[in-house]
Amino acid sequence: MPKVDEARLWASLMEMAEIGPGVAGGNNRLAFSPEDDVARGLFRNWCQAEGLAVTADAFGNQFATRAGAEDLPPLLIGSHLDTQPTGGRFDGVLGVLAGLEVMRALNAAGHQTRRPVVLVNWTNEEGAIIRPMMGSEVFTGALSLEDARAMIDHRGNRLGDMLDALQNGAGDLAPGFPVSAYVELHIEQGPVLEAAGETIGVVKSGIGFRRWLLTFTGRDSHAGPTPMEVRQDAMVAAAHAVLIADAEARALPGGRGTCGRIESPNGSQVTVASRVELTLDLRHEDLAELDALEARVLGRIRTQAAALNVGFEVVNTANSPPVPFAPEVVAAVDAARLKNGFSGRQMVSGAGHDACNIARVLPAGMIFVPSVDGISHNEAEYTAPGDCAAGAQVLLDTVIALAG
Amino acid sequence: MPKVDEARLWASLMEMAEIGPGVAGGNNRLAFSPEDDVARGLFRNWCQAEGLAVTADAFGNQFATRAGAEDLPPLLIGSHLDTQPTGGRFDGVLGVLAGLEVMRALNAAGHQTRRPVVLVNWTNEEGAIIRPMMGSEVFTGALSLEDARAMIDHRGNRLGDMLDALQNGAGDLAPGFPVSAYVELHIEQGPVLEAAGETIGVVKSGIGFRRWLLTFTGRDSHAGPTPMEVRQDAMVAAAHAVLIADAEARALPGGRGTCGRIESPNGSQVTVASRVELTLDLRHEDLAELDALEARVLGRIRTQAAALNVGFEVVNTANSPPVPFAPEVVAAVDAARLKNGFSGRQMVSGAGHDACNIARVLPAGMIFVPSVDGISHNEAEYTAPGDCAAGAQVLLDTVIALAG
Repeated sequence: MPKVDEARLWASLMEMAEIGPGVAGGNNRLAFSPEDDVARGLFRNWCQAEGLAVTADAFGNQFATRAGAEDLPPLLIGSHLDTQPTGGRFDGVLGVLAGLEVMRALNAAGHQTRRPVVLVNWTNEEGAIIRPMMGSEVFTGALSLEDARAMIDHRGNRLGDMLDALQNGAGDLAPGFPVSAYVELHIEQGPVLEAAGETIGVVKSGIGFRRWLLTFTGRDSHAGPTPMEVRQDAMVAAAHAVLIADAEARALPGGRGTCGRIESPNGSQVTVASRVELTLDLRHEDLAELDALEARVLGRIRTQAAALNVGFEVVNTANSPPVPFAPEVVAAVDAARLKNGFSGRQMVSGAGHDACNIARVLPAGMIFVPSVDGISHNEAEYTAPGDCAAGAQVLLDTVIALAG
Repeated sequence: MPKVDEARLWASLMEMAEIGPGVAGGNNRLAFSPEDDVARGLFRNWCQAEGLAVTADAFGNQFATRAGAEDLPPLLIGSHLDTQPTGGRFDGVLGVLAGLEVMRALNAAGHQTRRPVVLVNWTNEEGAIIRPMMGSEVFTGALSLEDARAMIDHRGNRLGDMLDALQNGAGDLAPGFPVSAYVELHIEQGPVLEAAGETIGVVKSGIGFRRWLLTFTGRDSHAGPTPMEVRQDAMVAAAHAVLIADAEARALPGGRGTCGRIESPNGSQVTVASRVELTLDLRHEDLAELDALEARVLGRIRTQAAALNVGFEVVNTANSPPVPFAPEVVAAVDAARLKNGFSGRQMVSGAGHDACNIARVLPAGMIFVPSVDGISHNEAEYTAPGDCAAGAQVLLDTVIALAG
């Protein structure tokens, strides 16, 4: 049976990491950057060297096709090569280069699949400069090519112009084509597998998440002469909100509640705060539980703010329902894990991935491997060579199972 | 007996407010600004028109002297003419122009005091661009002229250079001279008098205050894949700190606890916060109570941060012990209040004032008048003409009592 080559995979990962090096051992390879362009060219060259047919669609999603025995809709595998500005060497990259390793292993073994297998490098997964996971959105039709090209990044650049400036950017394909299923290998980006001493996460669903910007409006008054009982303190209301979100998420198995950014514009150390802005992110794998979590958290925050005589406004900024992965793909991944004798568990993806977009329209699944210390979106991100290879082997055996 | 002229006082307040107008009906007359310079010139001209001898010390503190019958150390009255960048028309200004009205009323009545009476306009009380209440610090010797001149404001300007650039700035006097007592009329900057329907606050002491910069250090991790129970969330620790300070201050009569400014540098809506910085201001009129409040608040914050596995560092940034005002000055103010039939109460000054610096070395006292809605350091700051005049009359009668 075909086997992945751990050393070959690791060498490719390290060679890719030389493109757009970060400042602390990781990578800075933003989507549409010159570094992204170089990475895309290297990906194409590597795939062509394996005899794969490399194309790109009009959004720049790159596809490397290994022909099947029959002219069936292909099995799609892959991930993304772009990174956060202080990103790691594995987030996304592992899924693409493990897919390449699958192709190399199939070639080395002379294994002919029934279906074609297509390896994809999605454009702009990270969303560091604009919204994330756009490549898969355009592929599924959730976002039109025209709307995507018209978007403006935080520096004022039009996405379409940035895409057109790439040497290895948009191709001739119209976005979207029939595929039988999609499988994505990714680092866990959390601490669960490592803490359990397990190797493979069989991802059964993508978590649902919602985000809000909360604004608390009190009244600025002098920190000395203003008695506590007459204050309208926006900071106190915001602090309650942070603790309410934390407590409610802790009380719900599988729940997540995060207030990651806070601002007190015009705040002063000697003034009761009149305005505090706070981001809130709530997640759960079950839609009804997420609804209930939202109701409890926002309801309690609203009640608490009113009790403090502080104004409260809430603006929803993101809304992504939970997405189950296809049972047949999940089963194939789990079977591949067991076949190789890897420890592991079924788990929920707490982060968004292109696989979540794909899963809304096609059978999809994911494979997780451990992230050391759960660190991701950080140059210190690390996954051991053996774990990278284990994930690639599970991907390879899943490909053989699903592509025939 | 001499009487203040409400209309004359109000007209002077409104004329002064035309210098350095704000954007919302208040004033922007920063210390050392061209507007401050114009205000200082107007103050000198007004005083000279009343026959007062106007001088300035080397730090720019302006003194207008009305001679007494005897060559005794003078009674000092006054406040400051500089404002916050979005300041009001009364904070400080009332104390100076009510002092001028006292001089005018004494002149109009032909009243000869035994002691000289000196009206002061302190330099840079507000500290909007550099530390506050420096004029009185230099006057008492708590801060040397050399050290004061060497200070750099937040725009990089040397204080000595800014002072030397004023037309109506530094004079020939060495800082500091013997005075018998100091009395300062000021708006309350809080809601207590207005809420009680009272006219005069007889200030018995200046509150003690301490400030800190609190830094919470957690670990940044992804808001989705990171289970609640393994997080090291600096935001949650900071939120506990805000509520601990608020709760402990509420539980202590006369206590104040304020977290007015917060920052989450590099905060992201999808990342557990790794660093949050928070200012803390605690106040009480009693030193032992302030010590105990500090111990309880910082102790609980430290314990809570440790329980969350979050690092906690605390840097003390200000430390001003409570200062009692002189019983004979407090009694004179209260007698003047009662003589005029004004309602009122003894109270603590929750804010710092030049009178607090003076009170550490000389007999000093303060008179408060109501601030509408307790608003100060805000262009909407307002004190009604009748209340301004009531405060000026109490100041006048206190002057007659203390200067003979």
